[in-house]
Amino acid sequence: MKSLANYQEAFLAYLNQQDYTLEPNGLYAPIDYILKLGGKRLRPILVLLAVESFGAKKEKALPASLAVEIFHNFSLVHDDIMDEAPLRRGKPTVHKKWDTNTGILSGDAMLIMAYQQLHDYPSSQAKQLHQLFSKTAIQICEGQQYDVEFETRNLVSETEYLQMIEYKTAVLVACALQMGAIIAEAAEESQHKIYEFGKLLGIAFQLQDDFLDAFGNPATFGKQIGGDILENKKTFLYIKAKELGNEKQKDELNRFFSVETHKNEDKIQQVKDVFEATGAKKSIQKAIEAYTHQAIKVLNSIEMEEQAKNHLLEFSDWLMTRKV
Amino acid sequence: MKSLANYQEAFLAYLNQQDYTLEPNGLYAPIDYILKLGGKRLRPILVLLAVESFGAKKEKALPASLAVEIFHNFSLVHDDIMDEAPLRRGKPTVHKKWDTNTGILSGDAMLIMAYQQLHDYPSSQAKQLHQLFSKTAIQICEGQQYDVEFETRNLVSETEYLQMIEYKTAVLVACALQMGAIIAEAAEESQHKIYEFGKLLGIAFQLQDDFLDAFGNPATFGKQIGGDILENKKTFLYIKAKELGNEKQKDELNRFFSVETHKNEDKIQQVKDVFEATGAKKSIQKAIEAYTHQAIKVLNSIEMEEQAKNHLLEFSDWLMTRKV
Repeated sequence: MKSLANYQEAFLAYLNQQDYTLEPNGLYAPIDYILKLGGKRLRPILVLLAVESFGAKKEKALPASLAVEIFHNFSLVHDDIMDEAPLRRGKPTVHKKWDTNTGILSGDAMLIMAYQQLHDYPSSQAKQLHQLFSKTAIQICEGQQYDVEFETRNLVSETEYLQMIEYKTAVLVACALQMGAIIAEAAEESQHKIYEFGKLLGIAFQLQDDFLDAFGNPATFGKQIGGDILENKKTFLYIKAKELGNEKQKDELNRFFSVETHKNEDKIQQVKDVFEATGAKKSIQKAIEAYTHQAIKVLNSIEMEEQAKNHLLEFSDWLMTRKV
Repeated sequence: MKSLANYQEAFLAYLNQQDYTLEPNGLYAPIDYILKLGGKRLRPILVLLAVESFGAKKEKALPASLAVEIFHNFSLVHDDIMDEAPLRRGKPTVHKKWDTNTGILSGDAMLIMAYQQLHDYPSSQAKQLHQLFSKTAIQICEGQQYDVEFETRNLVSETEYLQMIEYKTAVLVACALQMGAIIAEAAEESQHKIYEFGKLLGIAFQLQDDFLDAFGNPATFGKQIGGDILENKKTFLYIKAKELGNEKQKDELNRFFSVETHKNEDKIQQVKDVFEATGAKKSIQKAIEAYTHQAIKVLNSIEMEEQAKNHLLEFSDWLMTRKV
């Protein structure tokens, strides 16, 4: 898709212009490492896409797009410590390559550096950008906290789960889009709608992640299939299966999700069977469709050039048909 | 001292107005805990003192003073994790009372909350406040990184050490004062001078901390006397003793600072004897005096009402004659 590749290229060129070979090297080398580790750069692309959708030049949005990407990577560095994750994008996580203290401190510096990208916008924009960014950042912390708490809780409702993924994942997608709208000085109503579009799309995106984690194609899905199941993660599939299942199926799930040492391949297949038999698989597919549909409906209600709208639709398509 | 107590009171009243009993409680309870744990509230007092010194009302500076105090406490929470400190102000540290992950995440939220206090200032002030705050916050991360690196390095020069304490401690004092000046819309030259005053005073303050850690009065010093010595910390006293000592004294220091299991009381007394015999004790006293003197000289060159200047001198006196 040419246009998206263009945005990605523009962002990467800007990222590579930044100098992170500063002193003390022990603080900045991990920042340089994680920022250059790759990734699809979805969030910064969205900032650029949004600013052009509302008729301004993407160059204006480059600092904000960098803010969002640095923030996203900050949250990965700190989350990886909390999750004790050894790998990120197939490479050692910062706290593994260096140590936990480095992960904490370099992460802190990244959060500050993310803010720094926003300070030089014209004052009326700067205020809105800062407020939106801080609100979003706090919600992401809250989402992470709920995620941690849910791990040790027996019962998590569908509403609670959706709230958690909204905060942990969707609001940053929404924030990225609204930032572009703010920089393009779009009408307030359009700003709110593009935010809403991003939020709904972000929820759909995370639900699809849950779906692919169990039912994705091992050849194309980036992570190990069944990772959530092995970690006993209470995703949408699990919550729905517990809601829809009969007593036997619920017992089976309880048993599987309380044992860590169960033979891996067996466990994954059997839990997937339960997800299918209870209708949880169908239910998540419906939910993904519904959120995507709702997102597109909101998008269509925004006053925006047809071509720009098509670009955003293209983006949604690309995001939602991904196999990885 | 009436005036300082007034500022402290005004700050505490403002702090207590804030509602940190938010959900998720697991994220906000530690924030409420650390912010209400006490402390002298030096940094927020400085913001209020500075704004009034430059002729504006302290009420204007309350959000900025809260930003500085939240930031300071954020850095304590994360530093305590890195230092594996069990106690802070005589109470369990956040990562001990809860756990490391809570310390990381609640700390992150605090850094964001600190920024949030600055977003609503009038735009010209907001830009300056954000830029100054971010620059300071990054320097504090750099200072912490140097501090960590120095622990495992054999040689640390006096210049490197002074740079480290400037970043780790002094720039936040300087930032607090300049924030007050920004909010009072003081002339740029005055802003720079009050920053410089704060920086020099902050260095003197930290050097005095080093001094008191070894030679303070156990009855009034808040922490254990000799804590730095037991932790083999390369403070100004150690660096000076290595510089000024003869071969025998240097050997003695090397031996003491490479052994962790040495009998505590013996070690503290013998290292203190070396600090005294080498002239390191005299040297740090001279340095404290020189930085304080330099700070006051800068303060005297600021265009400011005599009464305001006296308040700031009073503050310096109070700070530098403290026994705790």
